[in-house]
Amino acid sequence: MRFNYSNSQTDPKDIEKTAKKLKDYIKFLNKVVEDNEYSKDEASIILPFDDNLHEEIKRLVSVKCNDSLKYIIDIGIGGSNLGTKAIYDSLLGFSDILEPDRFPKIIFADTVDPEFLEKIGNFLRSISSGNEILINAISKSGTTTETITNLEIILENLNIENKFSRLVLTTDAGSKLDARAKELGITTLNIPKTVGGRFSVFSSVGLFPLLASGINIDFLLDGARNIIHRSLNDDTLSNPSLISAIILYHQLQNGKIICDNFFFHPEMESIGKWYRQLMGESLGKEKDLKGRTVNSGITPTVSLGSTDLHSMAQLYFGGPKDKVTTFVYTSQINGNPTLPLDGEFQNLVDGISGKSAYELMSAIYMGVKQTYIKREIPFMEVILEDISEKSLGQYLQFKMIEMMYLGKLLNLNTFDQPNVEEYKIETKKILNSSM
Amino acid sequence: MRFNYSNSQTDPKDIEKTAKKLKDYIKFLNKVVEDNEYSKDEASIILPFDDNLHEEIKRLVSVKCNDSLKYIIDIGIGGSNLGTKAIYDSLLGFSDILEPDRFPKIIFADTVDPEFLEKIGNFLRSISSGNEILINAISKSGTTTETITNLEIILENLNIENKFSRLVLTTDAGSKLDARAKELGITTLNIPKTVGGRFSVFSSVGLFPLLASGINIDFLLDGARNIIHRSLNDDTLSNPSLISAIILYHQLQNGKIICDNFFFHPEMESIGKWYRQLMGESLGKEKDLKGRTVNSGITPTVSLGSTDLHSMAQLYFGGPKDKVTTFVYTSQINGNPTLPLDGEFQNLVDGISGKSAYELMSAIYMGVKQTYIKREIPFMEVILEDISEKSLGQYLQFKMIEMMYLGKLLNLNTFDQPNVEEYKIETKKILNSSM
Repeated sequence: MRFNYSNSQTDPKDIEKTAKKLKDYIKFLNKVVEDNEYSKDEASIILPFDDNLHEEIKRLVSVKCNDSLKYIIDIGIGGSNLGTKAIYDSLLGFSDILEPDRFPKIIFADTVDPEFLEKIGNFLRSISSGNEILINAISKSGTTTETITNLEIILENLNIENKFSRLVLTTDAGSKLDARAKELGITTLNIPKTVGGRFSVFSSVGLFPLLASGINIDFLLDGARNIIHRSLNDDTLSNPSLISAIILYHQLQNGKIICDNFFFHPEMESIGKWYRQLMGESLGKEKDLKGRTVNSGITPTVSLGSTDLHSMAQLYFGGPKDKVTTFVYTSQINGNPTLPLDGEFQNLVDGISGKSAYELMSAIYMGVKQTYIKREIPFMEVILEDISEKSLGQYLQFKMIEMMYLGKLLNLNTFDQPNVEEYKIETKKILNSSM
Repeated sequence: MRFNYSNSQTDPKDIEKTAKKLKDYIKFLNKVVEDNEYSKDEASIILPFDDNLHEEIKRLVSVKCNDSLKYIIDIGIGGSNLGTKAIYDSLLGFSDILEPDRFPKIIFADTVDPEFLEKIGNFLRSISSGNEILINAISKSGTTTETITNLEIILENLNIENKFSRLVLTTDAGSKLDARAKELGITTLNIPKTVGGRFSVFSSVGLFPLLASGINIDFLLDGARNIIHRSLNDDTLSNPSLISAIILYHQLQNGKIICDNFFFHPEMESIGKWYRQLMGESLGKEKDLKGRTVNSGITPTVSLGSTDLHSMAQLYFGGPKDKVTTFVYTSQINGNPTLPLDGEFQNLVDGISGKSAYELMSAIYMGVKQTYIKREIPFMEVILEDISEKSLGQYLQFKMIEMMYLGKLLNLNTFDQPNVEEYKIETKKILNSSM
């Protein structure tokens, strides 16, 4: 992974200056890794080094999965499924429709949309062999309304023998769900208490369903470890998470209140959705650490190249100067179809005859960058080596550490989400009054 | 479709006052419908009344489609596919993975991602009968780089006899693509010159692939016509498009520079993506109609209930007060699974036992609305009768007329997208220099 900030409109000297504010925090993060204990809010950064966890996941997958497995139903919402979906969709899920015979596939059940649940019920009733299906329900608290509802309705519609043997529950040790699972003899995986949902992709939350779907978690974790070394480095200008955080912080002071994540590899859209939660919940805060009302936050958006050039580019080029962009791009792709030289239509567009899809995408990407530069729209670039487990492990870890630095710079509690409770309380009132 | 703006923090008197500025424009729009000619920029509003067009589409579908049809490949980008995808995904596409044997399915090819194109190539080579597949490539100009590239690569990978008989090209009459199609004896559909991409969903662009996929276009158009009557009404407070436009305009003056479209029916996500283009390109303008530099625009975002309550709600509740929201909700759903009374886990969550998915979703929705009210976040509500062709026809037409009013209020050219050319020029330079 390469990180280029030369078009961020932020002076390296200013970056170095702001980085001084984070010197102690970098030391602290290094200590968290060194101590290797799940005791601090930042504990998610030790997950990629937790060999016991990785062995447990591999053992469980070898017990629960065999060649007959066709569908993994991943039940979870927010931090319980966004990381899994980010990686699955980027590597496999984007072509699920085009590869009807590639298995296993992950099916995600997050909200409780009646129509989707009806369809999933019909679908499950068509499955007759337990080996074809594996259910993984994930709720850190063990009491997430949507997740428990989905779990009940999915189990109700499953016509296989010994259903509970095909179910794995992932939750905090000691949660009510954990206790109930033990009473019923259901396999559980636990999440360290200090690892919050939006930082949990490299815990059992993400690793179990990803490995079960055939994704290589060793490479994924290898990528994450590689970034931890780079992003905990106190040499500012070789620390990508630190630089990115400082640029977003500076640009926020300049009125860039929207952070656009512009992927030139559309399969990565779900990574953008994962980042929406990471940034939305970590920085969207009513109060700062001193209890002052700040209503802080940056609104994350997701754009896809070249698709959104045909929908959002007019706004980005001509509209308000309220955005800072991170382009994500890769120069090495799997497969690269080329335009035939004798096609019947290619002469309609100048310069494309005989070109490969990659050459065209590159030319479009460079054209867009040139326009951003001319229009003085600040941007950073993340150039991934390829779209692989390792590169995605790098990217996700890079962004999680970036967010810790950003929260610190803004003097916020990066790890809580106090206001989310508000609608849940209202919902509970309504549910109880209608009993 | 019901429209509720009582929580928009906009005084009906102010709405009436601003509406006066649009009196002439409403008259003008009524005249466009009455004249029934494709001569004005606003001509898209006569599409739902164009019986000749509807007959042409039906005739062509009856020729090209039969019970063997399994896949429609919809090649197009931006305005050429977003409307089709919006409707298809909401009604059918959301469950494509769960219903592997339901046909026909639409597969969308928009950008030129090498990996996706490689997969689509493999997929197409597995198809042996021409009756199973239909290709519809759509490019208004006839020279869209991505669309021509996709068309060439898709044709190259198709191993059926008489390929061109399974191809329909949708383009402006007289475009280079139109001319080439005629040379090659390929069926074409035309788009009225004055109907721009983002307003073209009810032209042949959307109607042909939608009808081919089994969607009832009569009901869709019926919904659109219904809204045209309501939204061209000069009684301000019974005109939903007018009220919505005025509220977005007022809230923009109040610093609400982000317009969030919050769908409590996640299948409608692609409608949000369609609206991103509609708003992004229509209002994101460097210059106003007098040529003054204004850098105008509202950034459209898409949220899904209840999913995004677990990712973005913390930002919406606690973060900056820079958003105005439109909730989209329906009270009538197809299918409604209910939690069993004797489930093993439901006691973990208070108040859900025996409830239906719809009751839970409603309670969550009401809880969210209560929180928006308490936190003084302005919102509007669109309550659809159901999720059907008619309701979606209403919604899309409602939003297209809203955008015409908004562009007028902001004194912009709603129908052009001049700055998009900038990156295309840069890209062309790069492509030609690498020849």
